[in-house]
Amino acid sequence: MRYFIYFSYRGTHYHGWQIQPNNITVQEVLQDALSKIVREKVDMTGAGRTDTGVHASCMVAHFDLSVPMEDPDRMVQKLNSILPADIAVDKICPVASNAHARFDAKSRTYKYYVTERKNVFSSDFSARILGKGLNYDLMNEAAKVLFDYIDFTSFSKVHTDTKTNNCKIMRAEWQKEGDFWVFTIQADRFLRNMVRAVVGTLFEVGRGKMTIDQFRQVIESKDRCKAGTSAPAEGLFLVDIEY
Amino acid sequence: MRYFIYFSYRGTHYHGWQIQPNNITVQEVLQDALSKIVREKVDMTGAGRTDTGVHASCMVAHFDLSVPMEDPDRMVQKLNSILPADIAVDKICPVASNAHARFDAKSRTYKYYVTERKNVFSSDFSARILGKGLNYDLMNEAAKVLFDYIDFTSFSKVHTDTKTNNCKIMRAEWQKEGDFWVFTIQADRFLRNMVRAVVGTLFEVGRGKMTIDQFRQVIESKDRCKAGTSAPAEGLFLVDIEY
Repeated sequence: MRYFIYFSYRGTHYHGWQIQPNNITVQEVLQDALSKIVREKVDMTGAGRTDTGVHASCMVAHFDLSVPMEDPDRMVQKLNSILPADIAVDKICPVASNAHARFDAKSRTYKYYVTERKNVFSSDFSARILGKGLNYDLMNEAAKVLFDYIDFTSFSKVHTDTKTNNCKIMRAEWQKEGDFWVFTIQADRFLRNMVRAVVGTLFEVGRGKMTIDQFRQVIESKDRCKAGTSAPAEGLFLVDIEY
Repeated sequence: MRYFIYFSYRGTHYHGWQIQPNNITVQEVLQDALSKIVREKVDMTGAGRTDTGVHASCMVAHFDLSVPMEDPDRMVQKLNSILPADIAVDKICPVASNAHARFDAKSRTYKYYVTERKNVFSSDFSARILGKGLNYDLMNEAAKVLFDYIDFTSFSKVHTDTKTNNCKIMRAEWQKEGDFWVFTIQADRFLRNMVRAVVGTLFEVGRGKMTIDQFRQVIESKDRCKAGTSAPAEGLFLVDIEY
């Protein structure tokens, strides 16, 4: 029987979602907890991967069990009681045997949180911009340029194993939310490190160090070295996977 | 010249506000940072004290300098750049030489945050209630009883050095704020550990283990052993000092 599991995590202490040798990852901790309860080795397939330090308020994965669960809600409770405070399961649902957390996802949505004031309660959950502050009108103008392109090689980590670097951007905008400026970006798929590279390059525009035209040239160059440095991981949240 | 300093801190890694030997406190870190910048040993007097692990979104202290500051705003920036991420200074203002952060305060306001759902982003900033949940209507009814009394010995840590255990309660109520239930309590003064003892005893009422009448009897007994156990520190915030 196949299941979808919906969960959230604070990425601060993890080397991202995807399992890897010698580093603690969310996938490893979550799989181990579930395997312990069902007494069967469980392998999960995530809807995507998040980098070291990146958070997720809504992440999805699928897994198979040889013996169906009697009570998925009870399983959620059991999992939450043995998982650490920085991983929480929201829901487990039985799905069709060919349902796929990654291939069936139509889009992913990320949010990036920026603050210009020192905030002791959100220092793990936002990037703090020092100095004169950013011009968000200019950054929103530059963000609109993203809709004109599909090849985002310039914002992708080099040497990734994907066949194409094409992404369909569905949403890209900066909005004020309380004390924070928040960049919301939605696309059918994202390349490795792409959101943080986009945000870091928009910071250059917001600081007046790059014009909108130069931002366009960065995308057209298909050269990662032309883009800005990656924005810090702690500001980034995976907030939705749409099926 | 005397100054008031307004600041916030995440209490998780501190043994409260007040300086003490062999333990790290907010007062020590803040005084040391300021002393380093002004090259003069600074002693601060806080508006009150918070316990180990308790947070403050608005705390006030006063201090004297032999040489007046040239630019208090610039000093705020300098302090924030050398203070750790969990202490932030909001403002420094010159005041009259007899102004007193503690004696001049007319009241203090605390908030206590409770969640019934596991939340990975607020686990350091709220208390999680397991099981069937609490009856907040009953807890609000019990909270109203607090206005009928002034002697809160039952909610005070034993062996404190205060002359009386009298407090004038100005506000005490539970309200829903997003995913959280929040208890706001305002009084002219608070006894040591008082808010957490009140909240812990209200939890007993909310769980149906104590009636409103029994809650009244707890206060009248003037016996700390009759009250509930203290609610966890991580849910408590000092949110305002009113002058």
